This record gives sequence, structure tokens and C-alpha cells, in this order.
Amino acid sequence: MRQSTHTLTIETKTRGLIEITRDIVHWVAKENFRSGLLTVYCRHTSASLLIQENADPDVQTDLQNYFEEIAPEDPDRYVHGVEGPDDMPAHIRTALTQTSLSIPILEGKAVLGTWQGIYLFEHRTRPHRREIVLHAIGD
Amino acid sequence: MRQSTHTLTIETKTRGLIEITRDIVHWVAKENFRSGLLTVYCRHTSASLLIQENADPDVQTDLQNYFEEIAPEDPDRYVHGVEGPDDMPAHIRTALTQTSLSIPILEGKAVLGTWQGIYLFEHRTRPHRREIVLHAIGD
Amino acid sequence: MRQSTHTLTIETKTRGLIEITRDIVHWVAKENFRSGLLTVYCRHTSASLLIQENADPDVQTDLQNYFEEIAPEDPDRYVHGVEGPDDMPAHIRTALTQTSLSIPILEGKAVLGTWQGIYLFEHRTRPHRREIVLHAIGD
Repeated sequence: MRQSTHTLTIETKTRGLIEITRDIVHWVAKENFRSGLLTVYCRHTSASLLIQENADPDVQTDLQNYFEEIAPEDPDRYVHGVEGPDDMPAHIRTALTQTSLSIPILEGKAVLGTWQGIYLFEHRTRPHRREIVLHAIGD
Repeated sequence: MRQSTHTLTIETKTRGLIEITRDIVHWVAKENFRSGLLTVYCRHTSASLLIQENADPDVQTDLQNYFEEIAPEDPDRYVHGVEGPDDMPAHIRTALTQTSLSIPILEGKAVLGTWQGIYLFEHRTRPHRREIVLHAIGD
Repeated sequence: MRQSTHTLTIETKTRGLIEITRDIVHWVAKENFRSGLLTVYCRHTSASLLIQENADPDVQTDLQNYFEEIAPEDPDRYVHGVEGPDDMPAHIRTALTQTSLSIPILEGKAVLGTWQGIYLFEHRTRPHRREIVLHAIGD
């Protein structure tokens, strides 16, 4: 039994879903785990993680629109405004999605389903530098 | 330290919460872990996982109604429609709940609270075959 | 490779976010893990976990208000009422946030970002005794 860690750095341009499946799958393959547990961790409170369909890009558009609708950018609704009008909705959208994901590894691969992609969900409007920590434990 | 993996296959009939606690508890007992970490992983993007009260079935009715209300089946709201009118709401309800759960194992049992049950939350209307991957690591 | 477990007991007074970062960080330091995986697990269905900004307390106020708004205490909306009018909204707010968190440990510390705090999110109005199980595995 052994473990391994890596930090992915993602430069985001604006709000939206950025697929990071390939980076993660490559790292698991390179680290040569046959079976184990993969953890994906986002070190931020205004960006989050999501496992979602990566076949039809319309799904990403609808997800983006949905979260903009249920946690709207509207300064009148929030007390917290010092970091800009997009910051509090970003915290709420993060709270409603994931900061960490746990995915078993089997036969050398994370057991993602056929249509599952791993996304970084950027909630801020301006560019940000995001750190995603990967951890694997197993054989 | 050792690890073990198993895939549960669940045939769903329609939308709703399906309790899978017993299947999971049995597997942990059979694998004979004294202490460790259990991961439950759903390989789908239109069904999800939830830990919720398993005492009063009304809780499940209210949860079902709530998610139907906040992510309604209404084609006019979504761009993605090719897989049927229930597919995009299914993706959103999945995004708002869980794809993976992590539960410590202590004294041979997952440390579920007294009222906690583990549910597969099916979001599609028609029957589906769902795969839930279980992983345990520990002693 | 080794593992360790601990139960934190938190006495809550009423609804709101209670920061438990310090208790968790202290436990990880005391257990002396250099690298590994930390799991935080909440044994309840009307209280949950959240990683959020711990700089400006206004963020906590806005999060509290937001969840009160999207899952309001309004008996007319819910079938489940036997445990009081605040119970069903508590279950929904739990479903929308987290029951478990997974955080890698690197160089002796959980890899929390600069602004990330770990919160117990109490959703019931009256005082409750909450159990949070911590589990670490690693070297």
C-alpha cells in the first residue's frame, strides 16, 4: 500500500465549467496504481468541483445558467460585497456543489462512468489561478 | 492495511429514493474490516447519492417534491433536450446532491448515525440500470 | 501506512455555521500524519458540513439567509412535520450541502486553502449535540 499527491494548477478566464478529466486520468496512469482511492480537492471557496456529463456541451450551458439563476449576481440580496458583486454568488454556488470528490481506482483507472467528466466549476468573472490537489492511496 | 472493491447493480423503476444501506452494510461486514474508510461512488450523471433520514418515509416524499420543484421538468428552460425532457433536470438534481460519499468504518461498521440511511436518488422517469462502486480501505 | 479515528462532539445552540477548523487541524497535528487523507463525517441528517470562506463573517450570514430562503420553514410545503416545522427544511439544507468531506494531508497539514474553514452547519432551531467523526489514513 502506498500513496501519492500532485497539485494541478488551472488558469481560469471567467465563469464556467472547465473539464479536467484528462489531466487527472493521466496522473493516475503515470502513478501506476492498480487499485485504490482517488481524491480530488479544490483549495478555493469561489470555485468548485462537479462530475457531470461530458457528451453534449449543452449540459454545461444549462448547468451554468441554472446556477446563475438560483444564486444570482444581485448585490441587494447579500451583505458580503467587499470582494465584488460576483463573490457572494460564487460562495453560494460552491456550497451547492463540491469541494472534494472521492473516486475508487480499479484495474488502473478511476471508475468514472461512460459519460462522466470531472469539471472545475469557476464561479468568478475575472481570471483566477486555481489549485486542485490530487491524492491517491492503494496498490 | 488492505483494500476491497465491489459493484452494486440497482435496477430502478422510476424517479425516487431507493435505500441501499443494507446492501452496503452487508458488504462491509462480509469483507471483515475492523476500521477504515468506506467510499460509495455512483457511475452516473442522472442519478446520485444521498445520506438522509430513514425513519419517516414522508421525508423521502418531501425531498423528491423539493428537487422536482427547484429543477423542474420544463423543456423551455433548458437547451439540452435530446435525451428527453427529464434528462436535464436529472443532471441538475445530481449536481445539487452527491456522486460520492466517504464514511469511516469503526468497530466493524460504517459510522452511520442512528437515523442515517444511504440512498440512490434516481432522477430519470424510465427504468435504468445503475452501478454503485463500493471501496473500503483499512484493517 | 496507518490510520486513526476521533469523534468531535459539538453542542449547538441554534441554526448557523460553527467553525470547527481548529479542532480538526489540532487533531491531525497530534496524530502526527505527514501525508495522507483526512475524512470528516457528520452523523446527522439535520446538520451538515461545509468548507467556506472564514475571513468575512458576512459570508456566513449570507449563506445562512440563502439556505433559509431556498428551503423555507413553511409547514404548508412539506408532508413531514412530526419533528417540528424546522425539521424538513433541515433535511433539505443537509441534502444540498455535505455529510462528508475528504481533504488530503501534505507536509503534516490538511491542504485547506488560505481562506477555507471547515464548518458544521446546524439547521435545527433548538440546541443539539452533534457528532463529527474524523478519520485519517497515511504515513
